[in-house]
Amino acid sequence: MEFASFLVSLGTSAIIFVVLMFLFTWLSRRPGNVPVYYPNRILKGMDPWEGSSLTRNPFAWIREAFTSTEQDVVKLSGVDTAVYFVFQSTVLGIFALSALLLLPTLLPIAATDNNLETSRSATDTTSNGTFSQLDNLSMANITKSSSRLWAFLGAVYWVSVVTYFMLWKAYKHVAALRAQALMTSEEVLPEQFAILVRDIPSPPNGETQKEFVDSYFRDIYPETFYRSLVVTENSKINKIWEDLEGYKKKLARAEAAFAATSNRPTNKTGLLGLVGERVDSIDYYTKLINESVAKLEAEQRTVLAERQQTAAVVFFTDRVTAALAAQSLHCQMVDKWTVTEAPEPRQLIWENLKIKFFSRIVRQYVIYFLVAITILFYMIPIAFVSAITTLANLQKALPFLKPIVDIAFIRTILESYLPQIALIVFLAMLPKFLMFLSKSEGIPSQSHAIRATSGKYFYFSVLNVFIGVTLAGSLFENLKALEEKPNSFITLLATSLPKSATFFLTYVALKFFVGYGLELSRIIPLIIFHLKKKYLCKTEAEVKEAWYPGDLSYATRVPSDMLILTITFCYSVIAPLILVFGVIYFGLGWLILRNQALKVYVPSYESYGRMWPHIHTRILAALFLFQLVMFGYLGVKIFVWAILLVPLIFISLIFGYVCRQKFYGGFEHTALEVACRELKQRPDLEEVFRAYIPHSLSTHKGDDHQFKGAMSRYQDYAAISAA
Amino acid sequence: MEFASFLVSLGTSAIIFVVLMFLFTWLSRRPGNVPVYYPNRILKGMDPWEGSSLTRNPFAWIREAFTSTEQDVVKLSGVDTAVYFVFQSTVLGIFALSALLLLPTLLPIAATDNNLETSRSATDTTSNGTFSQLDNLSMANITKSSSRLWAFLGAVYWVSVVTYFMLWKAYKHVAALRAQALMTSEEVLPEQFAILVRDIPSPPNGETQKEFVDSYFRDIYPETFYRSLVVTENSKINKIWEDLEGYKKKLARAEAAFAATSNRPTNKTGLLGLVGERVDSIDYYTKLINESVAKLEAEQRTVLAERQQTAAVVFFTDRVTAALAAQSLHCQMVDKWTVTEAPEPRQLIWENLKIKFFSRIVRQYVIYFLVAITILFYMIPIAFVSAITTLANLQKALPFLKPIVDIAFIRTILESYLPQIALIVFLAMLPKFLMFLSKSEGIPSQSHAIRATSGKYFYFSVLNVFIGVTLAGSLFENLKALEEKPNSFITLLATSLPKSATFFLTYVALKFFVGYGLELSRIIPLIIFHLKKKYLCKTEAEVKEAWYPGDLSYATRVPSDMLILTITFCYSVIAPLILVFGVIYFGLGWLILRNQALKVYVPSYESYGRMWPHIHTRILAALFLFQLVMFGYLGVKIFVWAILLVPLIFISLIFGYVCRQKFYGGFEHTALEVACRELKQRPDLEEVFRAYIPHSLSTHKGDDHQFKGAMSRYQDYAAISAA
Repeated sequence: MEFASFLVSLGTSAIIFVVLMFLFTWLSRRPGNVPVYYPNRILKGMDPWEGSSLTRNPFAWIREAFTSTEQDVVKLSGVDTAVYFVFQSTVLGIFALSALLLLPTLLPIAATDNNLETSRSATDTTSNGTFSQLDNLSMANITKSSSRLWAFLGAVYWVSVVTYFMLWKAYKHVAALRAQALMTSEEVLPEQFAILVRDIPSPPNGETQKEFVDSYFRDIYPETFYRSLVVTENSKINKIWEDLEGYKKKLARAEAAFAATSNRPTNKTGLLGLVGERVDSIDYYTKLINESVAKLEAEQRTVLAERQQTAAVVFFTDRVTAALAAQSLHCQMVDKWTVTEAPEPRQLIWENLKIKFFSRIVRQYVIYFLVAITILFYMIPIAFVSAITTLANLQKALPFLKPIVDIAFIRTILESYLPQIALIVFLAMLPKFLMFLSKSEGIPSQSHAIRATSGKYFYFSVLNVFIGVTLAGSLFENLKALEEKPNSFITLLATSLPKSATFFLTYVALKFFVGYGLELSRIIPLIIFHLKKKYLCKTEAEVKEAWYPGDLSYATRVPSDMLILTITFCYSVIAPLILVFGVIYFGLGWLILRNQALKVYVPSYESYGRMWPHIHTRILAALFLFQLVMFGYLGVKIFVWAILLVPLIFISLIFGYVCRQKFYGGFEHTALEVACRELKQRPDLEEVFRAYIPHSLSTHKGDDHQFKGAMSRYQDYAAISAA
Repeated sequence: MEFASFLVSLGTSAIIFVVLMFLFTWLSRRPGNVPVYYPNRILKGMDPWEGSSLTRNPFAWIREAFTSTEQDVVKLSGVDTAVYFVFQSTVLGIFALSALLLLPTLLPIAATDNNLETSRSATDTTSNGTFSQLDNLSMANITKSSSRLWAFLGAVYWVSVVTYFMLWKAYKHVAALRAQALMTSEEVLPEQFAILVRDIPSPPNGETQKEFVDSYFRDIYPETFYRSLVVTENSKINKIWEDLEGYKKKLARAEAAFAATSNRPTNKTGLLGLVGERVDSIDYYTKLINESVAKLEAEQRTVLAERQQTAAVVFFTDRVTAALAAQSLHCQMVDKWTVTEAPEPRQLIWENLKIKFFSRIVRQYVIYFLVAITILFYMIPIAFVSAITTLANLQKALPFLKPIVDIAFIRTILESYLPQIALIVFLAMLPKFLMFLSKSEGIPSQSHAIRATSGKYFYFSVLNVFIGVTLAGSLFENLKALEEKPNSFITLLATSLPKSATFFLTYVALKFFVGYGLELSRIIPLIIFHLKKKYLCKTEAEVKEAWYPGDLSYATRVPSDMLILTITFCYSVIAPLILVFGVIYFGLGWLILRNQALKVYVPSYESYGRMWPHIHTRILAALFLFQLVMFGYLGVKIFVWAILLVPLIFISLIFGYVCRQKFYGGFEHTALEVACRELKQRPDLEEVFRAYIPHSLSTHKGDDHQFKGAMSRYQDYAAISAA
C-alpha cells in the first residue's frame, strides 16, 4: 500500500469519526433520545443529565468520564466492568510506556539506515515499489547483521519488562478490587450463602432426592445448614410459563389499545393471528391466562414431586460456611457430591446442572477438539458453502430462481458477492457457535460460559485474522516452504510480518475511528428504538424493552481488543509507529466505553472480576507470540545475538506460572478472610432461598395484581420442598 | 546362562531358605528371643504366644497369618500396613490370574515352534549356545511373522485387563478402608482437630506472631477456633534437651551400676570419658541435670517469646471445621496463609515448616532436576570414586599404606574389590540421599517425605537396574544404534529383553528365597540384640532400645517390590514362566510380612493409606512400560498387528486419568462425610493441643520424679502462649 493511500484511508476514517462525534453531541441532547443514551442511569433511578444541563459544554461527557472513579464504575456497572477498565488502562500503560522509549530511539535508528534503498536499487526496475515511506521507519530498513539491531533487541526487553510490571500491578489491583467488592457489598448476595452441588447419587430406597440431600448436609453442618433446593427438570413447565407471560403481554397490549381507542380490540385465534375465529382480545387472553395458571399450578406440583434431578443448591446460614463448603471435598469418591460456589441465580444454566462428572470431562475434551478443528479448518466449510452457493448449483437446487438469475445485472452481483456473503454469515455465526460449544461443556454459569467463549474466540481471531492475513499474500509458496522445513513456522511468520505492517496500521485506525465512533453515537440502536417505538410498542413495558441496552458483551469485545493488542505487540518493535495507534485505540476505548458503562450498558451478571485471570493469560500469550516472532525476525536479519531472547521467553513462562500460583486461587474461590467480614444487614435467608427458585416454579411478578392466586406458589414450593 | 547353572542357583537359594526357616522355627521358640520375634505384641501389651503354646505346631505362624483379618492388621499395625497388604494381594491376584491363562496357552505354543533351533543351525558353530532349554518356552522361540504371535498379542490384552480390574477393585477397597479408619478411630486423633498454617505474613506493629494468628483465625471461625501453636526456632533448645536426656540416661546407668555392685561408679569428665578429672558419676550427672533443667527453662521462655516463626498449628473444637479449613483458601493471595491438613505430631518435620511458598516450588523443581541427573548419570560418580580408589592413587594419598599394600595377597583382594565396594557404598547411600533430597523440598511430614523418596527410588531402580541390566551386555553397540535412530529406544530394549530372561528369573528367586528367608528369621537383629544386651545395656530402657524393631520401611521396601513387579510384567508374555516366580514372590511376601507386621514391626507413623495413590500410579507405570516393550518386541518379530496394542496404551493412560479424578481427592483431603461422624468420646482439647508441643518445649517424661520442677513447663507454655 502506498503512503498516499494510507493517508487517504486514515483521513476518511477520521472524518467519519468526527461526523459521528457531532451526531452524538447533537442527538444525545434531544430529550426524546434519552432512553438510548442514558438507559443505565434511568434504570438506576438517577437523573440522566445530573450535573450537566442541556445548555452546557457539549464535551461534558469527556470530563465526566475522566472524573469518574473506579468506585463509581463499580457502583453503576459492577466489578466486571471496572476490571474491563483495568484491562484497558493496563494495556494503555504498556503501550504508552513502550512508546515513550521506542519512538524516540528506534525511529531515528531505522530512518537513518538504508536497507530498503539498497535492495530497491539492487533489484531496480523489477521492484514494484511496495515499500512506502512508512517502511523507512521500520525494522525493514535495517541492514542485515547491522549492530543497530542491538537497539531493537533491547526494545523487546523493554516492552517485555514494562508488560510484566504493568500486569503484576494490575493483577494485584484486581485481586484487591475483587476482595473489596466481596467484603463490602451492601446488598445481601444470595450466591454467597449457597453452594451448587452436582453428581448427587441416587437416594436410598424410600427417600426422595430432596430428603437425601437435606440429611446429608445436615449431618455435616448440623448448625449452619439452612435448606436445599433440588434442581428439577423444568423444560415443560418453562414452556407453560412462557406462554403465560406471552398472554399477559398480549392482554396488556389489548388493554392499552382499549384505553387509547375505547374500542374493544379483537384478534383471530389461529396461526400468527391471521386465520381462525375472531374474538374479543381482552376476554380471550384473560381466559387463556386463567387456564395457563391452572396448568402451571398442576405442573408445579408434578415437577417438584417427580422431576427432581441429581443437582441441588444448598443454603447455609452464614457466608463463611458457604465459602468453606464450596471448596471442600464432601464425598470420599470425588465424582459424587461435587461442590462449587453457587453462581448468581440469573447466571445459572439450569439444563447443564444435571450433567455428570465424567460426562463433563469427556464433553470438555470433545469440544476442545472441535474448536481446534474449527480454528484450523474454518476456511474449509466456507469454501464448501461458497462452492455449493455458486449460481450453477443454486439453479440446479432451486430451479424456480432461473428467470431471476438470468438477468445479467443480478447475475453479476450474485456471482461476485455469494462467497463473501457465505464468509460473513459464517463469521457472524462464529461467536454464537462458540457459545453453543462452551455451554455444551456442561458449564453451570453464564459468566463462565462467556469466559470460555471469549478464550476460544481469542485463539480463533489471533490464528485466523492475524496469522492468516500475514501469511495469506503468499500462502501457497509458504505451504511449500513449511512442507520442507516444518520448524520454520516462526521464521516464516516473521518474514511475512513487515509486508503487512501498513495493512494493520490501517486496520487499527479503522477500528478506533469507525468502531468507537459507532459505539459512542449509538446510531443503530437509536434508529431501531425509534422505529419500534413508533410502529410496534403499545405498552410502557414494550417501550422499555425497546430501549433496554444489554451489557458490554465481553464474549466478543474482549477478544477483539485482544486482537488489536496482539497486532500492536507484534509490530511494536518492527514498526514502532503502531504503538501510537495502539495508544489511541486503548485511550479512546477507555474514554468512550467509560461513558457507555456509566450511562448506557446494564451488566447482565456479576462475577467479581473472574474474567481477569483469562485476560491476563491472553495478554501474556500475546507477549509470548511477540517474543517468538522477534526471535524469528532477528534471526531473519542474521543477528546472532537474537539468542539473548531465549531467556526472555522463559521469563514469560515463569512469570505466568508465578502469577497463576499467587493469584488464581483467589479468583477461583472466595478467600475466607474475605467471606468473614460482617454484613451491614442481617440476611433474610428466605429471600436468599427464594432468589434461586426459577420463575416458572415461583410466583409471578408481584405487581401483577390480577393473578394473586399464583402468588401462593412460593408457599406451595416451600411446603412441598420442606416435606 | 545354561539351564543347569540356573537350576543350581535356584537350588542353592531354596536350600538357604529351608535352613533359614528351620532356624526361625527353632530360635523363635526360645524365651530369650521373644523380644526379637514378638516386639509388636509385647509393646501392645499382649501375650507373645497367645493361643499357640511353645510345644505346638512349629508352623502355627502360617495359620495365624492366614486367619488374621484386615481389621487385625489395622488394629495391630495401622492402615498403612493394611494398605501394603492390599498391594501385595492385588499384585498376587494380577499375576495369578495372568498365569492361569498364559501358562497353559503360551508355553505349548512357544515350545512347539522352532525359531531358536533354526537360527542355531543357521549360524551353526559360531553360536556360543547362549540359548538354554528355558528359552524354548519363551517368545524367543517363535518364528518371525508367525500367526502364533496372535496368542501373545492376546496375552498382553489379558494381562492388561486383569490389571485394570484388580487395580480398580483395590483402589475402591483402599478408599473404603481409609474412610472407615478415619470415621471409626477409637482414640481422639490430634491431627484431626488441627491444621497446619504456613506462609504467615509479618504481624502488624505491636502484635506478636501468636496474637496475629489468633486474631486472624478467630475472625474467620468465631465459634470453632480453639487455639494456636506458633512454630518456633528450636535448634538451640533441642540441643539442650538432648544433652539433658543424655545425662539422664547416664545417671540411670550409674544408678543401675551402683545397685548391682554397691560401689559408687566414677567417670572422667573430659572427652569421651577418657581424660580429665575423675568424679562420682551419680553426683556429677545429677548436677549436670539440674544445670540443664535451669538452662532449658530459661531457653524455653526465650524461644516462646522471641523465636516465633511464620508457621503455626491451629486447633479447632471439631473435626469438620478442621477438615473444611484444611481445604479452603484463607487469603486472597494464595502464597500467604497457606493451609494443609496437620500431619501427626510425630511426623512433623519442624525445620521445614518455615520454608516459604515459592521457595518450596523452586526447591521442588531443583530437586526433580537433581534426581533426574542422579538417575541418568549415577554411574559417573561411582566410576570417578572407583578411579581415585585404585591402589596407585590410594598409595599416593596415604603413603603409610604402602607396606601393607605391597603384600601380594592383600593387593589382589583390594584391586578386585575396591570398585565393587565403591558401588555398594553408593547404592547403600542412595535411599538416604534421596530421603535427604525429598526433605529438602520443604515437605512438612515424614510420611510425605517417604512417599516422595519411594517414588524417586522406583524410577531409579527401574531405569538403572532393570533397563540398565537389560542393555548393559551390549551397551556400546546400543549407544551407537541409539545415536543413529534416537526413536528406537523401545525397540532396542525389546530386542535385549529375551537375553536377560534367565538372569531375572534367578534374580527374583534369589529375592524371595534369600530375602524373605532373612526377613523371617531375623538373624541379624537377633545377633545384634544379644551382643548389645550382653555387653552394652545396663538399664531396662537400654535393653528395650536394643530390641525396638522399627517399621516396615516403605521408602525402600515398596520400590524393591515394584522392581520385581516391573520385571515380572515385562517378561510375563515374553517368558511366561516368570509369572510363577512373581506369584511365589508376592505370595511368600504376603505370608511372611503378615507375620512380621502382626508380631514384629511397629509403625512409626500413620497416614491412612496415603501411600496407595503412589503405589497405584507406579503399578500402572510398570504396566505402561510392559505394553510399550511388547509393542516394540512384536515389532521386532515383524508382526504388523502389533499396531493393535496402540489403543491399549491409550486405555492405560485414560484408566490412570479416570482413577486419579475419581479417587485421588479422597486421599489428598479428608472428605467431610468421613470427618462428620460422631466420636465415641468427647475430645480433650488440651490434650490435643499438648500433643503438638515439641518435647524440648513441653515437660519431661511424667515418670521422671526427680525433675518435677520441669513439669510446670506445660503450664508455663500455656501461660506464655496465651499471653
